Amino acid sequence: MEATSWVGRSRRRIEGNEKVRGRTRFVGDLHLPGMLYARPILSPYAHAAIERVDATAAKRLPGVAAVFTADELGVRRLLAQREVNYAGEPVVLVVAADETTCHDAAELVEIQYRELPAVVDPLAALAAGAPVVGDPTLHQSDDAGAHGATASSTTDSEPRPANMPQRLRFRRGDVATAWNAADAVISAEFSVARVHQAYLEPQGCVAEPGDDGGVTIHASTQGQFFLRAEVAKTLGLPESLVRVVPMAVGGGFGGKIFLLEPLAAQAARLLGRPVRLCLDRIHDFLVAQPAPAARIALKLGATRDGTLLGIEADLLFDGGAASGSPVGIAAILLGSTYRAAHLHVVAAEALTHKTPNSAYRAPGAPQAYFALESALDMLARKLALDPLELRLRNAARQGDARADGRPWQRLGLVESLERMRASELWQRRKSARGRDEGYGLAVGGWPGGIEPAAAGCRIEGDGSLTIHVGSVDLTGTNTTFATIAAQTFGVDPARVRIVTSDTDRAPFSGMTGGSKITYTVGRAVDEAAADARRQLLALAADHLEANIDDLVLEDGRVFVRGNPSSGAEIGELARLGMEFGSPHPPLHGHARIANPESSPGFAVHLARVHVDRATGVVRPLEYLAVQDVGKAINPAEVEGQIHGGLTQGLGRALAEELIHDESGQLHGGSFLEYAMPHSGDLPPLRVELVEVPSTYGPYGAKGVGEPPAIPGAAAFANAVEDAAGVRITEVPLTAPRVLAALRGG
Amino acid sequence: MEATSWVGRSRRRIEGNEKVRGRTRFVGDLHLPGMLYARPILSPYAHAAIERVDATAAKRLPGVAAVFTADELGVRRLLAQREVNYAGEPVVLVVAADETTCHDAAELVEIQYRELPAVVDPLAALAAGAPVVGDPTLHQSDDAGAHGATASSTTDSEPRPANMPQRLRFRRGDVATAWNAADAVISAEFSVARVHQAYLEPQGCVAEPGDDGGVTIHASTQGQFFLRAEVAKTLGLPESLVRVVPMAVGGGFGGKIFLLEPLAAQAARLLGRPVRLCLDRIHDFLVAQPAPAARIALKLGATRDGTLLGIEADLLFDGGAASGSPVGIAAILLGSTYRAAHLHVVAAEALTHKTPNSAYRAPGAPQAYFALESALDMLARKLALDPLELRLRNAARQGDARADGRPWQRLGLVESLERMRASELWQRRKSARGRDEGYGLAVGGWPGGIEPAAAGCRIEGDGSLTIHVGSVDLTGTNTTFATIAAQTFGVDPARVRIVTSDTDRAPFSGMTGGSKITYTVGRAVDEAAADARRQLLALAADHLEANIDDLVLEDGRVFVRGNPSSGAEIGELARLGMEFGSPHPPLHGHARIANPESSPGFAVHLARVHVDRATGVVRPLEYLAVQDVGKAINPAEVEGQIHGGLTQGLGRALAEELIHDESGQLHGGSFLEYAMPHSGDLPPLRVELVEVPSTYGPYGAKGVGEPPAIPGAAAFANAVEDAAGVRITEVPLTAPRVLAALRGG
Repeated sequence: MEATSWVGRSRRRIEGNEKVRGRTRFVGDLHLPGMLYARPILSPYAHAAIERVDATAAKRLPGVAAVFTADELGVRRLLAQREVNYAGEPVVLVVAADETTCHDAAELVEIQYRELPAVVDPLAALAAGAPVVGDPTLHQSDDAGAHGATASSTTDSEPRPANMPQRLRFRRGDVATAWNAADAVISAEFSVARVHQAYLEPQGCVAEPGDDGGVTIHASTQGQFFLRAEVAKTLGLPESLVRVVPMAVGGGFGGKIFLLEPLAAQAARLLGRPVRLCLDRIHDFLVAQPAPAARIALKLGATRDGTLLGIEADLLFDGGAASGSPVGIAAILLGSTYRAAHLHVVAAEALTHKTPNSAYRAPGAPQAYFALESALDMLARKLALDPLELRLRNAARQGDARADGRPWQRLGLVESLERMRASELWQRRKSARGRDEGYGLAVGGWPGGIEPAAAGCRIEGDGSLTIHVGSVDLTGTNTTFATIAAQTFGVDPARVRIVTSDTDRAPFSGMTGGSKITYTVGRAVDEAAADARRQLLALAADHLEANIDDLVLEDGRVFVRGNPSSGAEIGELARLGMEFGSPHPPLHGHARIANPESSPGFAVHLARVHVDRATGVVRPLEYLAVQDVGKAINPAEVEGQIHGGLTQGLGRALAEELIHDESGQLHGGSFLEYAMPHSGDLPPLRVELVEVPSTYGPYGAKGVGEPPAIPGAAAFANAVEDAAGVRITEVPLTAPRVLAALRGG
Repeated sequence: MEATSWVGRSRRRIEGNEKVRGRTRFVGDLHLPGMLYARPILSPYAHAAIERVDATAAKRLPGVAAVFTADELGVRRLLAQREVNYAGEPVVLVVAADETTCHDAAELVEIQYRELPAVVDPLAALAAGAPVVGDPTLHQSDDAGAHGATASSTTDSEPRPANMPQRLRFRRGDVATAWNAADAVISAEFSVARVHQAYLEPQGCVAEPGDDGGVTIHASTQGQFFLRAEVAKTLGLPESLVRVVPMAVGGGFGGKIFLLEPLAAQAARLLGRPVRLCLDRIHDFLVAQPAPAARIALKLGATRDGTLLGIEADLLFDGGAASGSPVGIAAILLGSTYRAAHLHVVAAEALTHKTPNSAYRAPGAPQAYFALESALDMLARKLALDPLELRLRNAARQGDARADGRPWQRLGLVESLERMRASELWQRRKSARGRDEGYGLAVGGWPGGIEPAAAGCRIEGDGSLTIHVGSVDLTGTNTTFATIAAQTFGVDPARVRIVTSDTDRAPFSGMTGGSKITYTVGRAVDEAAADARRQLLALAADHLEANIDDLVLEDGRVFVRGNPSSGAEIGELARLGMEFGSPHPPLHGHARIANPESSPGFAVHLARVHVDRATGVVRPLEYLAVQDVGKAINPAEVEGQIHGGLTQGLGRALAEELIHDESGQLHGGSFLEYAMPHSGDLPPLRVELVEVPSTYGPYGAKGVGEPPAIPGAAAFANAVEDAAGVRITEVPLTAPRVLAALRGG
């Protein structure tokens, strides 16, 4: 490593300038020659039989290229077939020369439905005699895996209700023993609302048919290889016939994985022309898949000194109309963050007639930690213990068994709690509080994910580096890659360019999600840069007739130690590998890696709030996030990530909620009504970084994206109790809900 | 290697179907959002001063975006500055919203020229007092190097005329000694016409400005990395700010390297919008750079038994208005194909007021071999020796010194001559001849080229391979790569896909030219596939818990020898490297190579013709090409390459000629007048492949593109003498020229 340390020094985002100037091209900006526009017609009913579709008039409208029903697509499950299972389910796809014609044609399609009884509440869905939701063969498996969490769990073998596609159980010791031995036992039932990922750019793609029966998909996706595999599987094509071109993503947060791409792809293949399928905001709220609501019954028991003895939990996720809720990860996190000799966690999913769910930043974790961290504060209060000390006493350490029996890797929970204890805000929590103000502490953790990755590092004739990756940059990871490559190779980061390719060309990378891109692809970049450096020095040794061990790479030149004038510029050496007649091969480093273990990341948050007793409004006053990030390669970006996570946590804590009425109709499905936090709603955000290095991440880095979005709900609920003396077990903490609690409701 | 041999088995071109169906997208088919159209205004004079340019009226025309003169571009030498040096030199660039407006605006630009004396004939250009051509600092160096030939020569240090930018000299022994000892000496002066590469698709590009000051160029080019370097150099940009996207090339033959791309790029950068600059056919004939005419005075002397004693040659290439003629390669080939103790070759270039030259299939070689092979026949005739035996006696062998003193690598000239001797056509040349029919034999050779190359080989989840290269496929090289990868890896070639990337993404490759892509990139593909195979077997050994040496890859599966059911499919294993949580890295092979030496390729041609004594028309009746190709990986494609070369050689021999009048005006600059051979003009073509394996080419392959285009002119001239008794030393052998010779003119 050179004397200059780029790692750990804040750096602006590479692509920031073009984004700020509005020059970034998103999928909606794409106009391919001969491109058609597509618009789905959505079911207005949460549950209904499709009796008849009459598209005669629509097909006659000039400019209409096709009006597809499920049967006309030649591939199953791209549209609702005989039955709709949520309001918003696509039933028909209109394809026309322009968007206006799509709208007009959609008006002309007559769909006759026979409404069926809908079940909207998950508990009602599990009751005997409830209408069965969806086609059971449609039920997907837990997709938290793909998003980044490891979940080796025990699948429950007992019979399940028809609308319960999955149930898991983790057990250790015997919780009855714990309750008997405990000096204090608390139990409560918590509930977390369904929320939207609320990205700025709605879901969309443009599909372009190939001559070979294949298809190219330009998509706003977090995972091009994942999308490729899904489209291939859905359409029954070999993967090599599907090409995904990842576009700039205008916000994903877990929600941009894949949605209507197979539908657009099949329409394009049938029509032999490019098809654009970009949802408008209203359709996006109805079709795109949000984060699931959950109910969690939780019981904790501890001795007087705060030693946690038992954890008993019953989690129920509301899956909407298809299985996919992250029950495994939620159960593991709930049962593994603190040591407890006795554990019994059951986690299940219920299907209801609502839009199915997908991932949202730390899938399952905000739900689990809202319950766990609220309950810990209740326990501390009951035992009159300091809530931070209670957590510290029980916090998991490296080697402790998780709920699933696997040992924790090295984790920085204790270090983060200690840093919080030392913080100025924590220290003054008792002295500095106005009337109706309170402080709330909460922890959140994420196990981290691993996925194989590869990367390339080409040395250019101008002395710069081109890093070649297949990962989608959502959060500044490319800027981080540039820093890693610069540090490892020994050049200024400004000399490093990151190139992301499509699935035909890119080195493999997993999906951007689960806080794993820097941890996995970053390591591949690190090793590719090291490979390129070795190649450069070997060429230089040959060219300069020097011993490789005597060579120094500094200021863009390679020279013999102590004799800077002896050397050659990087670009000059690289050009030797690109010259007619040259005996030197091109300089092009590569690496392919598979980290053998994930690296968990923990955050400890502290919120200071004011509760307006008259209106129930909870106003955040200050917020401190302490987080173990392993190593902050680009501290500005790490802090930016944490700011974003805090904001989303705050939204889930105080305001955001997708509400369905009893007939399954979504209320408030637009940004006019869906209550996201605005910048004016935010308190001053303070971030303190803890650096407990990971073993396999580049320069010790670990994932930072998920943890900051987790503790918010509990931190605010705990602060509200501290401020106003009421324990609220349901988020968001909307004013009416807080007011009701204040009034004893 | 598996039992199945794909190498050596004919296979259809991968991209043939889409080309035949008209689905291939060329640069002219590209329409980018906001794209502008550009059209150059060309000088009508061969030599003139530019006195004034008035674009006022043109700029006022609605739809005109810009009218650029040289001074307005901010970069030198993109347009003629103060003086034009050939008729066709771009003086002004009009940029407008559409092509019609470009035409209209061009009409409105007033350019005032002051005509200057032009020199069109190369000998006149070298005379004292001749007008000096061009800006001497514009003179490029010999670009045959880039095209593929090696030329380590002796630059002449004697003073040169102003219009002679280069002169080389090769000397061995003392030719006077040879003439004294010789039993026969012949000498003659030969002349070869200037010809166009006559690709179907005119030159063109679309340049798209970047936000960073850089530019993306979509171009019909044979060498994307070469073009990138040239554009960067011309515009003063670092290479990493220039991205070249190689489009399908509608014929190149050496002429599609780079031309107006820097001009289009600069216009796009200045206007901040994409600019399309595609020449129409008339402009292409005037602006694009053809193959140079040459005059060669040659003297040979030999003993009675046919032992060649001396070669003396004086070559003069007509460079047009800028230096760049392949004089080095011509001189080396002329002085190295046959052994001679005494040698003196001088090769020079004269500048004239005509469009500058560029490469055309085997640059310099058709000129050199027309002289050499004509002269050898004259010598054989004088000595009453069999022309084939004369060649065999003197043919260069491995280790013989070339004119430049370097030893010949392994070459198949002798083997090819022997195969010709054994051929049916050669055997019946004396018995089977009608009236006024004759046979002409000629040899052609190409030293081969080397350039570093890299390639990738990714194993897909569906068990297929993706080969990643940076070379432009002009002649079926991608199909050959698929065969190489299939053979080396052990899968069916149908399971191999070739992906070419732009300069940002591709593994480096040299320009497609000089008969070196299969020889160099092919080897990189071979090694990348071998690397991927090793990775697959290592993963399989781990996954199957087997010893790697016991594993077999067969029928798409890896299994333990003798136990096919034990194994796993390739795709299944590859997916292990792309799975969430997997301990296996992605399977992605790479190679970067630099062949240490080139591999020369030789061809021996035999033409049978009829000469119409009344009209002078030479009608080809039969044609046999024998060629050493090292190893024909895809014999159908190798034969196709040879067919194309023969046809171009026939065109140069009998018809093609770019004619300038004494004022430097091109006559016949369109496909209506430029006489290319049509399919009906072709005799039956027979090809016999000789396989003298190369040391470094994949499976022993060597370059096959250049050699077949070389011997045609001499083969036909020799056949005409055999048929009609007249020796014609000037090609093309047009009817008037032949008639004049027959009449003793």
